[in-house]
This record gives sequence, structure tokens and C-alpha cells, in this order.
Amino acid sequence: MRQAFVHRLGASAPDDVAPLAAAIADRRLLPAAIVAVLGKTEGNGCVNDFSRGLATAALRRLLEQHLPADMVAEIPLVMSGGTEGGLAPHWLVLEARPAAGGVGPALAVGRARTPRLEPWEIGRREQIEAVAEAVRTAMAQAEIAESSDVHYVQVKCPLLTAERIARAQDAGHAVATLDTLKSMGLSRGAAALGVACALGELPRQRIWEAAVGGDLALWSSVASCSAGIELEDNEVVVLGMSHAWTGPLRIDHAVMADGFDVEPVRGTLGRLGFAPNGQLHPDEHQRLAAVLAKAEPSRSGRLRGCRHTMLDDSDVGATRHARALVGGVLGGLVGHGELFVSGGAEHQGPDGGGPVALIAAA
Amino acid sequence: MRQAFVHRLGASAPDDVAPLAAAIADRRLLPAAIVAVLGKTEGNGCVNDFSRGLATAALRRLLEQHLPADMVAEIPLVMSGGTEGGLAPHWLVLEARPAAGGVGPALAVGRARTPRLEPWEIGRREQIEAVAEAVRTAMAQAEIAESSDVHYVQVKCPLLTAERIARAQDAGHAVATLDTLKSMGLSRGAAALGVACALGELPRQRIWEAAVGGDLALWSSVASCSAGIELEDNEVVVLGMSHAWTGPLRIDHAVMADGFDVEPVRGTLGRLGFAPNGQLHPDEHQRLAAVLAKAEPSRSGRLRGCRHTMLDDSDVGATRHARALVGGVLGGLVGHGELFVSGGAEHQGPDGGGPVALIAAA
Amino acid sequence: MRQAFVHRLGASAPDDVAPLAAAIADRRLLPAAIVAVLGKTEGNGCVNDFSRGLATAALRRLLEQHLPADMVAEIPLVMSGGTEGGLAPHWLVLEARPAAGGVGPALAVGRARTPRLEPWEIGRREQIEAVAEAVRTAMAQAEIAESSDVHYVQVKCPLLTAERIARAQDAGHAVATLDTLKSMGLSRGAAALGVACALGELPRQRIWEAAVGGDLALWSSVASCSAGIELEDNEVVVLGMSHAWTGPLRIDHAVMADGFDVEPVRGTLGRLGFAPNGQLHPDEHQRLAAVLAKAEPSRSGRLRGCRHTMLDDSDVGATRHARALVGGVLGGLVGHGELFVSGGAEHQGPDGGGPVALIAAA
Amino acid sequence: MRQAFVHRLGASAPDDVAPLAAAIADRRLLPAAIVAVLGKTEGNGCVNDFSRGLATAALRRLLEQHLPADMVAEIPLVMSGGTEGGLAPHWLVLEARPAAGGVGPALAVGRARTPRLEPWEIGRREQIEAVAEAVRTAMAQAEIAESSDVHYVQVKCPLLTAERIARAQDAGHAVATLDTLKSMGLSRGAAALGVACALGELPRQRIWEAAVGGDLALWSSVASCSAGIELEDNEVVVLGMSHAWTGPLRIDHAVMADGFDVEPVRGTLGRLGFAPNGQLHPDEHQRLAAVLAKAEPSRSGRLRGCRHTMLDDSDVGATRHARALVGGVLGGLVGHGELFVSGGAEHQGPDGGGPVALIAAA
Repeated sequence: MRQAFVHRLGASAPDDVAPLAAAIADRRLLPAAIVAVLGKTEGNGCVNDFSRGLATAALRRLLEQHLPADMVAEIPLVMSGGTEGGLAPHWLVLEARPAAGGVGPALAVGRARTPRLEPWEIGRREQIEAVAEAVRTAMAQAEIAESSDVHYVQVKCPLLTAERIARAQDAGHAVATLDTLKSMGLSRGAAALGVACALGELPRQRIWEAAVGGDLALWSSVASCSAGIELEDNEVVVLGMSHAWTGPLRIDHAVMADGFDVEPVRGTLGRLGFAPNGQLHPDEHQRLAAVLAKAEPSRSGRLRGCRHTMLDDSDVGATRHARALVGGVLGGLVGHGELFVSGGAEHQGPDGGGPVALIAAA
Repeated sequence: MRQAFVHRLGASAPDDVAPLAAAIADRRLLPAAIVAVLGKTEGNGCVNDFSRGLATAALRRLLEQHLPADMVAEIPLVMSGGTEGGLAPHWLVLEARPAAGGVGPALAVGRARTPRLEPWEIGRREQIEAVAEAVRTAMAQAEIAESSDVHYVQVKCPLLTAERIARAQDAGHAVATLDTLKSMGLSRGAAALGVACALGELPRQRIWEAAVGGDLALWSSVASCSAGIELEDNEVVVLGMSHAWTGPLRIDHAVMADGFDVEPVRGTLGRLGFAPNGQLHPDEHQRLAAVLAKAEPSRSGRLRGCRHTMLDDSDVGATRHARALVGGVLGGLVGHGELFVSGGAEHQGPDGGGPVALIAAA
Repeated sequence: MRQAFVHRLGASAPDDVAPLAAAIADRRLLPAAIVAVLGKTEGNGCVNDFSRGLATAALRRLLEQHLPADMVAEIPLVMSGGTEGGLAPHWLVLEARPAAGGVGPALAVGRARTPRLEPWEIGRREQIEAVAEAVRTAMAQAEIAESSDVHYVQVKCPLLTAERIARAQDAGHAVATLDTLKSMGLSRGAAALGVACALGELPRQRIWEAAVGGDLALWSSVASCSAGIELEDNEVVVLGMSHAWTGPLRIDHAVMADGFDVEPVRGTLGRLGFAPNGQLHPDEHQRLAAVLAKAEPSRSGRLRGCRHTMLDDSDVGATRHARALVGGVLGGLVGHGELFVSGGAEHQGPDGGGPVALIAAA
Repeated sequence: MRQAFVHRLGASAPDDVAPLAAAIADRRLLPAAIVAVLGKTEGNGCVNDFSRGLATAALRRLLEQHLPADMVAEIPLVMSGGTEGGLAPHWLVLEARPAAGGVGPALAVGRARTPRLEPWEIGRREQIEAVAEAVRTAMAQAEIAESSDVHYVQVKCPLLTAERIARAQDAGHAVATLDTLKSMGLSRGAAALGVACALGELPRQRIWEAAVGGDLALWSSVASCSAGIELEDNEVVVLGMSHAWTGPLRIDHAVMADGFDVEPVRGTLGRLGFAPNGQLHPDEHQRLAAVLAKAEPSRSGRLRGCRHTMLDDSDVGATRHARALVGGVLGGLVGHGELFVSGGAEHQGPDGGGPVALIAAA
């Protein structure tokens, strides 16, 4: 048996790894057991967000004091920029430790990575299939038996840069887009369709037929994808329930249909044993170990029949608006801002909405 | 007897007064009965927010087609910039019409204005006293008997410009600040203390003793103040309950202690007859005529014990973050984004929080 | 004979038309003689720039006090948002008055407009041809004989909105793009190709063959195009030299190859009789009546072999960076910031550069 | 004798130290000879600019591969955020190597640091005196005999944080300001006055009499100060001419009176042997080793008699506008964007202007 642990630690700056260092020093956190680290950092979450790189550099430097560099290199470090409104910068460290015994099911964590993609494969069928394969590998690694037991799949996926586009063109290949910012969305979308494919959320035929980024009616209810400049493969972390794991942690998920759609999340809280009528009591903040959500503005420009202005604001990026909104909606429910709300939800939940996963102790 | 009406009308652009024009054409809205117009417009809500001026110009042009210019000039046109996140641009038109009879109490609306202030009086005791006097006048005009029946006081107050500062200095007077942006906060703060003074929320002695902008422990629970460049006096609109008014509309208020503090608002919804456990049902959206709230980041840099980054963001103004946050929190409760959430809450509710008024049909 | 006048008037706010009102009151400016008004306003120059609408509303209100509304409606009011860095908000009022006699050649001004375009014609051959036709009409109206005598063509062109796209789709037509922001660039590009077509700057065949927005090697050296939401046709103002006009004003132009390419502008100053070695002497500021330039970041991400970051900045729009840059370069040359520097130069000069027209008294 | 070297190296990202690594590998750059590293990085240059920290982390990691950590800790790493408009991210590495012989004078470089300041000393006389002392030490270390031979003094100075303010208050001391952003300006201003004091640019009496940040008529013509969160002392780098140094490099400086004041810089280019009438020829780009300038908007809101809008823009920080402007003005003169233009020029040149130092090979 194995047991998963989730550490939620506040950060006073993007490179503030002191809370992790303290937890390691106290032996609350075992470096060798770390499966992945997720972080909310306080940059703009867009192209020129250097808070992510700063956080990653600090984290890697810390981990290399405790682990061989090649083991550190295997740990997905997924930094999501943007703590707009009430969101709080924080780290989520996922551990898997051997357990002497115990009963399941419980939270299970697995990871895998795809082969390195060529630039012309990004945002295309090749990426979808590679991610699907990695999701299946990570599920197996986590000993999650059924697709329906998967509640969250984090994918960190590559993007196109000017240099990669040039490399593709020199090799005689057309890329999915010449716009580097747009390539982030295409890569996230293909990764999400790969998740949907692996879990059987969508018929394979419909996935191939639909152009990626085109038919937003096709989506995964558990995928959460972030594009990053620092990798050329795809890193996949699967979270779900498994009988091979023990301990008090449980995971469940909901899908928000739009930015105000808090009721499905309230329902999930109820299934996890919280009294969900009003806001969570502060005593419950620790028991609810993590909230992981995707946010985006609806392309229609409307939300519950009213106009929103997120897509028309040339001063503040639309994903910044969307994170602030969903951070407010979910924070009003759970009562604090240490929420992993990430922007850019192509094929991750319906247009304008997104998946939300909750991890809590029984 | 009189009867108040509240029209909430969506806007497709800052100068989209077509919904008002249509309501006037249909005789749903009587220009001569308009007491005040509030508007959420989609600028940044900061110094260079030209959406407010554009909205005001369009509104004035429309009203001048139906009313003499001097009557139009008497109507407070309070434009609040900033529809971040899920907030929706909209107009709130407040009408007072004679009623043939009926029973009270019901929503009452009154207005008044202070004399023109000299630049050196802005943000100082003179402004506090002038606003207090205008609040009392507006209460009398609205026939609201008790201070405890007042649930919302909107003040539109002046600010200092370079030209006004120069005028003061030429006259040998020192102004409260040489920083024009800061003068907005000082003016809002003094106006809020004026409201608190008129309503007996704070002992007069403490108001004089405390430097304006200094002791944030002194605040009004019903004041909502906006500074604007276009006036040199203060416009006051008082909303409350009065036995001299009839009709179905009721008003009540809550105070949010911080940006996530949704429970007091839920309580107010309950007092107004809504089932408040989860999100309001869409059928209730019309019955809840208006939501009026103030938002600001806490100066401590912390929210519910976690760090927020609203005050450290040099790309996006702190008031923009705060409006997005409170718009999400309140929108998660009421289910839509036509909320009059305004930023800059000095002495309007506690630090990091703010008053929220709700108007609903019985 | 006719004589052109150019009035350059500073503005203290987007709606500050007081300098125009004063000039009209002094009879320095004759409303009936106004051919066009250009304005630099202080918004972001992007989608949600409400300073343009505010300026236009104030300007129209002023002109309607002096002219019939239908005459006002005929005057192109071209507001260009964005006064980044050292740029100063100002108005440029172009007048054409009858002259009792005199000799030419001198600055000539003509205007024309295209028929209303259908949404599916925007950014397409239909727009190119319509603009080309209007340029020829405006040239004829201005009595400019040769294409080589044309030094500046301002086009105000339409863009696609969600509503217009829906209208096109309902009528069974595909539009050039579903992205409203992108439609601004396509419309500007088609308009610029229309100018190039009319003036014979490019072989017609190459224009048709090249997809609009595609081959940036095709460009006009005198076109300056701005897209606006407020019109569905194209307004064209042509400035050039004509023997049918008299007076001291002359116009000439240069093409900047990139954002730092100031030498061609220095050369033009020399041809206009200025001593161009260093910065213009302040005594010459009035004699140089107007500087009209286009600015954009190069798509290569490089400028003179060094990396620029204008296209990677998700906080500040690339056109804002480009205007600030060119405003600095040209302001360093002419010594002040009342420069009509406008962003978005698709097919207007080479990639990363743009046309610059100078008007000066002999 | 010693000889100074200046390496100007472009960066493809804030953490791109590959050009330095290559120069070290080629033995063009000797780690042990490095006196200081200056870098322009592409963040916003304001509070939440994480590009500076990312650059510093990467630089430190590289240097620690070649030098003991305590030697690395002694090297001032001065990152200046903000490459607006045409500015290019780049590194300036300053080396001092022993020279076998040769003749002077030539560029000389010295460095020193102040003791650690208590929070309540920041922005106050204690900081002025400490910086003055360090400037004298650095001059002595660089063997620069006369104050008039000093042409550039870079100071990296501390700022107040919430934590430091609390520490001061616990110790019973009042700090210069409670506003952390404002403390950056006060610290820069005090450091600049320290430079002026050490070099005898201002009478000591006037420095003490004038409140720091108050009388902007008091300024240094060679100081360039940047506040950083990562230090509590002040790091000082002095550049000047000395007979104890040899080699081809020369340094000279100018003071821009305002953002468009390019002529004094043109004059300095002439003194350094360049033909300054037009833009520098590309062949000269290497010979002009470095351009170091400060930029700021004038507090009057006017530039050459015209209004600027840099201080009224709530979307883009005023220092960002100012850097873009001065980058354009200087880039128009020298023909490229690898210019170390830094914002925030309190007491560094006159209000709205700033010092500019040029280093060139003879």
C-alpha cells in the first residue's frame, strides 16, 4: 500500500521556499517522496511571467540540496502564474510514501511524461495521442483501476517559440500556428483532448474529426493543462482514488458551467463530508487540503445573460480577469484564497467554465 | 405618499443609453421622476478612466432631450468605473413618483448637495461637516425619520487637481495633499466620516480627533463615496426605509469584514425574504433589484491569514483586483454580475471590507 | 485657388475642445472650412480606448453649435489613441479656404468616402478597391495631379464586431476573421493596399495575389490607416502638393525602415528648409505645422540586431510600446511631443517601420 | 597600472547567461576580474518585477561555478527592470585587470559598500553620509584623484518592507515613510544626495537643510541609484577617469534637462570622438561601449510646454513611459537599443531629466 500526502504552504515571494525547507528540516516533508510540486505564483500568468521561472529556479535549488539532480529533473514542477484578487501565492507538494498497511480506497498520485514532441506535433493529433498514452501510464503507475476514479489530470505541455517554429520550417514542416501566444492555447487544448481520449470521456472519432481549438463542445471534465516554455515533452500528473492507496485523503471533482457556477462545487464539498450551506468554517480550512480549478472568460462575451468585459480589456489579460472571478467565487465558498486557480481552459470544461477538483481528509 | 422605483439596465458600451431611451419611450421610465442615476462602466476606475466621462456625456445628452438642462444638472450621475472579472456594465436609475395611496414603510430616496468647497477644504473638517449637513437634508427630503433607517448613502465628492492646488496656494492656503490621486482617497474618507457624523455612527469627538485617512478603525457602515473630477461640491443620495413611502421595494444592508466575508450578505438576503443557503435562483434575479457594495484590499497585505498581492501589483491597480474579488464573491451568491461594486473604501466599512446594500421587492 | 490651413492645438483632456472653441470665437478657425480633424487622445489606443469616443462626442457637440448636423457628419474625425512617453494630446484641424489668388504649388487637402461595406467585405479585395476609388476621388477633389504629389493618405476604416460577424453569418457569408481585434489589422491592411493601388505604388497583380496581412513586403509609403468601431464605410483624407492651391504650407514624406530610423525624416526636414543636423530650434516648432507617423514593433522580435520585447509584454500592448519609441525618436529630432504618432502599420511602410509625413511653412 | 574592460552582451531572456558563459569559456571574460555586473531585464521595473530576481539568480549560479561564493557575494549585481519601446535586454560586465604597463588616463572602476543600515536610517541623513563615505572609498579604490573625474556612480540601495518597518517600530523608531513603494524613491534620493555630497556637487549645508525628496533643485549630475529588496546596505560602483589606469576606454557624461534633451548627449559623443551630427554609423556601435542614463517624467506634467500623460496613466507606470521615451531619444541618436536606461531619478539630474554617461574606446 502507499499513502499520498498533500502539503499546502504559503509563500511570501515567488522564490520563498523557506516553508518547504522548514518542512524538510522537520521531516514533515520527505524529498525522496515528492511526486510533483504545484505552485501559484504572483506574476501575470501570461507570456512575460517571470515569477514562474523564479519559483522553479528556487525550488530546484532547494531540492538539489536533498536529491540527485536527475531525480529532481523527474519531478514535475508546475508553476501557475496569477494570484489576482483574493488568491494567495502558495505551494502544493504532493508526496507518495510507502504505507505499512491500511485500507483503501484513498487519494492516489501517479506521473508520466511523453516523448519529446517535434514543434510540428504541438497542438496536433501527435500530441493528443502522446498525452493519452502518458495518462494511461500514470494511471497504471498510480494503480487507479477505472477512468471514473480519475478526478484531476495536470498536464504541463510545451509551446511554440520563434526558434522552434524556425526549426520546423527548416525541416520542411508546417506548424499549427505562427503565433507563439496562440500556440499555448493549442497545446493546452490538445493535451486536454489527450486526457479526454485516455479516459474515454469523448469518442475517439469525434476527437479526430474536430479540429483542436475548434469545437469547444468537446471537453474533458478533469484535465488541467498549462503550457510552459521550459519543456518540449509533456509532464502528466494523475490524481484519483485507488484501493492500493490508504490514508485519510479523498479526491472528488465538479465542473463549473460558467464563472459563477458555484453549486456543483458546493455539491462536491457535501460529498466530501463538509456542511456546505454557507461558507466553510475556518476550522475546516486544513481538512480541505487543496482546491484545483480552471478559469476562463466565455467566448460569447456573456455570463448569465449579462455582458462581461474580460475579452475587451487591452490593459488586463482575460485570463487575469477570469482567475480573479473564480478566485472570488470559490473563496466565498471555502473562506480563504489558497486556491490553485489556473487560467486558459481550452477543452477543459465547457466554454467559460472549467473543472474543479477538491482533495480533503475524511 | 411617494413610491421609489429602481431600473437595472444592461449597457453594451459606456455610452449605450439605448435601454434608457427605450424605457422612456415605453413610459416605463419617467425622466421627470429621476432622482439619481448610478452606472458601472468598463474603464479602469482610476485616474485615466474615460468611460465615466463618456457615459455621463451620453446620459446628459439623452436626458436633455426630455428635461430642461437645469433639471438635468440637478440629477446626480454617479459613474463608477471598473467591471473586472464577472461584473457587468449596467445602469441603475432611481425614480421617485407620487403615489395615490398605499402603506409603508418602503424604500425612500432623497438627495442634496453641499455648497461648493474650496480646494483647501477637501479632505478636511469642512468637507466632513458639509457632507453631514447634506445627509441630514437628504434624509429630511426623503422623510426618513431615524438614522437606523438609512441603509445606503452615495456621495460623489470632489478631488484636487493641479489647477485647484495652484489656486489654493495662490490664495495662501495649504491643501490636504499635493498628490492628486491621493486626494481622491482623502475626499472619499472625509465624505464617509461626514455620513457617519450625520447618522451618529461615530461620536463627533472621535471624528475630529482622528485625522482623516488615519484611523481606519473609524468607519461608516452605509457610506459609499466616489471622487470625481467634474464637480466641486458633494452630491449626496440617501436610500433608506420610510413610512411616507409605499410600494414593494425594501432596502437593508450588511458590512463585509473582508473580501471573502459573504455570510453577512447572505444574512441580509434572508431578512429580505430570499432562501439564502445556496446561490439565488435565476427567477429571483429581478426581485433583487440592486446590490451596492464597496471593495478594497486590506492594507495589511493579508486576507484570512494568507498573503494577497493586490497592493504589490504595479501592472493592475489594487482597486481593480478588489472589485474583481468582491464581484466574484457576491456573484457566487446572487448568480449574476450586474452588481454595483465600487472601489476605494476609506472609512467605508473596516479596512479590507465594506458596506453592502441590497434592494429587493417584497 | 484654395489655401490649406493646419491648426495644432494642445488638449488638456480628451474632451477639451476649448482651444478649438477659442479659435472659432477669434475667427482664426472657420467651422465651414474644416475638411477633417485629427486628434491624439490619451487612451490605450486599443479595443477599450474610450478617450477616442469621448473626444469625438465633445468635438461633434462643438461643431454642431456652428454647422448643420449633416455637414458635421461629413467631416472625418480621426481620433488616434495613445500618447505614450513624450507624446502630447493635441488636435490637428485641417481647413481649406478659397484664396483670392496667389501661386502654387502648396499643400492641398481632399476627402472622400467609400460606400458602406458589408462585414464580409472588410479586409478583402472589395475594401481594397473601394478605398482605391475613394483615394482617386479625394485626389481629384484636392486637384492633385500626380500620384507622386500625394504625401499622406489618412484612412479611417471599419472593423468587425460580434454583431457584424453574426449578421454576415446569418446572410451566409464568411468573414475574414472571427477575431474582432485582428479584424482591425486586416481592415487597416486592406485600406493601405487600397492606397497603394490608387497611387500605383504596387502592381495591381501583386496586390491581388498577396493575401492581405500576409506578405508584409508589400506596402504603401504614404498610407496611414486607423480602424474604428463607429463607421461601416471608409473615410479618406488625402494630403499632397497641388498647383491649384496656394499659401506657405508644404508637405513631404519619408519612410522609416524601423523604429530607430530617424535619418530619412531628418532628410525630409532638410528638404523642407530646416537645418537638420541637431534638434530643431524651438523657434521652428510653429513653422513645422504637423508630424504624422505610423509606428509598430517588427514581427521578427529584433530591432537593429538586438532583441526587443514589445511583442512579449502581456501587460502593455505592443502598439503602446511602438508609439512611445517612435515618439521618442521623432521628439528627439523635432524637440517636442505634439506628434501624430499612430500604431498599427500593416502594409503602411515596411515591417517594423512606417511612413512619416511632415507639413511645414515655407 | 590597471585596465578596465566593458562587455555588452545581449540576453534572450532574463536568465540567459549563456553569452557570459561563452565569454568565460573563451577566456574573453575573466570571472576573477569582474568588478560589477549591470543588467537591463524585461520586467516592469516596479515592485513586482521578478525578472530582476530571476536574472540575479541565474547570474549568481553561473559565477559560483567559477568563483568562491563569498567572492561572488562581493560583486554588485545591479539589475534594472524595464526594456520598454526600443530598449534591448542586455548585460554590462565591468572588469578590472592588471596591466603590464601603458599610459593613462583611462576608464577606472571602483566599488565599495556601506555598513548595513537600520530601517529608520533609510532615506535619511544616515544614508546620505554612509553613501558619501562609500563613494570616497570607491574613488580611492579606483585611484580617481578628482571629483571632476567621476562620471558615473551607480548605487544599489535598500528599501523599506513591511517587515523592516515593523522591526523599526518595535525598536521604537519612526521610519521615513510607511509606504514601501515610496521608500524606494526616498532611498534613491538619499543615495543620490550622498553622491553629490561626496563629490562636492552641492554644499553640505544645503543638503542637510533640504528635506530629502523635497527640493528637486538639488541634484547630482553623475548619480544613478536603484533600490532593491535584496540588500540592507548600499553597494556603490564609481566610474571615472584615472591616470593609474590604461587602455582605450574613456568615460564622459552629460545631463539631460528633460526627456527630449538630446543635444548634451550629442555633445558628449563629440567629445568622445564620434561624428555626432546625425545618427551614429553602425560601425561605431561597438566602439561606443555603454550608454547609461536615468529617466523620469517631470512632476509638472509638462514637457517642452506640452502636456505629457505619463503621471496620469493608471495602467502603465510612469517610469515605464519615461524609459520608453528616453530609450527612443537616445536610440535615435546612437542607432540601437542596448542602452542602460533606468527609471526613478530623484535628485539624479533635474526634475524630468537625468544624467547620461557614455563609455567609448578612443
